Amino acid sequence: MTKNTKVNAAILIIGNEILSGRTQDTNTSTIATWLNTIGVTVGEVRVISDVEKIIVDNLNLLRKNYDYVFTTGGIGPTHDDITAESVSKVFGLNYEIHKEAFKILEAYYKPGEFNEGRQKMVKMPENANLILNPTSGAPGFSVENVFCLPGVPSILKSMLGGLTNSIVGGKPILSKTISLKTVESEIANSLTKVQNNNIDVEIGSYPFFHAGKLGVSIVIRSDEQSKIDACNTQILNFVNEKKIKVVNR
Amino acid sequence: MTKNTKVNAAILIIGNEILSGRTQDTNTSTIATWLNTIGVTVGEVRVISDVEKIIVDNLNLLRKNYDYVFTTGGIGPTHDDITAESVSKVFGLNYEIHKEAFKILEAYYKPGEFNEGRQKMVKMPENANLILNPTSGAPGFSVENVFCLPGVPSILKSMLGGLTNSIVGGKPILSKTISLKTVESEIANSLTKVQNNNIDVEIGSYPFFHAGKLGVSIVIRSDEQSKIDACNTQILNFVNEKKIKVVNR
Repeated sequence: MTKNTKVNAAILIIGNEILSGRTQDTNTSTIATWLNTIGVTVGEVRVISDVEKIIVDNLNLLRKNYDYVFTTGGIGPTHDDITAESVSKVFGLNYEIHKEAFKILEAYYKPGEFNEGRQKMVKMPENANLILNPTSGAPGFSVENVFCLPGVPSILKSMLGGLTNSIVGGKPILSKTISLKTVESEIANSLTKVQNNNIDVEIGSYPFFHAGKLGVSIVIRSDEQSKIDACNTQILNFVNEKKIKVVNR
Repeated sequence: MTKNTKVNAAILIIGNEILSGRTQDTNTSTIATWLNTIGVTVGEVRVISDVEKIIVDNLNLLRKNYDYVFTTGGIGPTHDDITAESVSKVFGLNYEIHKEAFKILEAYYKPGEFNEGRQKMVKMPENANLILNPTSGAPGFSVENVFCLPGVPSILKSMLGGLTNSIVGGKPILSKTISLKTVESEIANSLTKVQNNNIDVEIGSYPFFHAGKLGVSIVIRSDEQSKIDACNTQILNFVNEKKIKVVNR
């Protein structure tokens, strides 16, 4: 992969707690927003359960279809944490104690506290690259294009910064949002014309109902600022013609 | 499908705004929580972009692998709303104005306001079953086991109640959460033993860091209360032995 090509990624959220509805996933938004800044577009997200065959099958598919795959969840010390063992199977690697990770956690805990349960957190695919964890010690890891992160949002967030040099992205994806005091059906035809005139720009239309305000946010996305500007002008043209109010949101 | 068998579902979130990280999906949690109460387990969630081929391919796979599929997003009036047309292709049905939906929106809007943009919202697969919308008029629809809902969370939420009679679920999925003032590694081995003794119960372990409190929530899920109670007792046994504090969360 070289700079300036389109680079994409998939996110694989591993965890029954999201599928049951008990926990609201926020990691997708965190990872996707960060990836956009380094020029990587998220093409697909899947949420799957803590079952080895399901993890292995999904990883084998996604790692071939996307430049990068990010997994979240399943790298803690309990019985339902099976991501590291599953990734080992995906790549045909031994699942074993990672010496560097062992040293990190040995130093992190008080003497005698790095017990058997905690030692599970340093079992990984052999020779995995570590992803350092400034929050709670236990590192994530990567093998080839698969990057394994924890499920706890605050810990995951703290680990992304350290990953930036491991990802070769394309041009950053830029976006511009125009929020209007209108409803979608008032602008649908005009907006379709703008989209048809700018087929390589992604234009989305999203109604909002928030704090008593009702409106539509139009989001323009491209890796070229000039193309965003051109769409912005064309949209504001019909907005002015129709006497629709632009609002802050 | 008859009562008391395991019934499952997939959720297909259609929308670039989730993949870009701009919008945080909350519909998964809403749908999954509601489905659990009527005995349906969510087996998989996918977030995909507004591209017809991607929608069609995913729907064809998911509707065969799951008892029910719920889609969110892409049923509004703008150019990026292509769910209804895509579902028509999936089932080889005409994409056409739905007479009943047309009547609903004709009555909903003031005379003259049911314009061309709005009329797109009543184009659906021929003979689709309507899902009534008590919030904003425009209905969703279903064809066979595929149920198409809007992306706006408040509207989606208002439509689920009306769907309950269309879904034949199994036994409701029950759950019990035990929150502990401990860390996962302290309980990992004991919890593994409880899981191994109760292999048909789903036991999850989730660390939390919230409002200055640090702990672990253990979630026990089953469609049989007696099995949940048995696990609960076994967990509280080792919790008491280890002198771990149970906390409210």
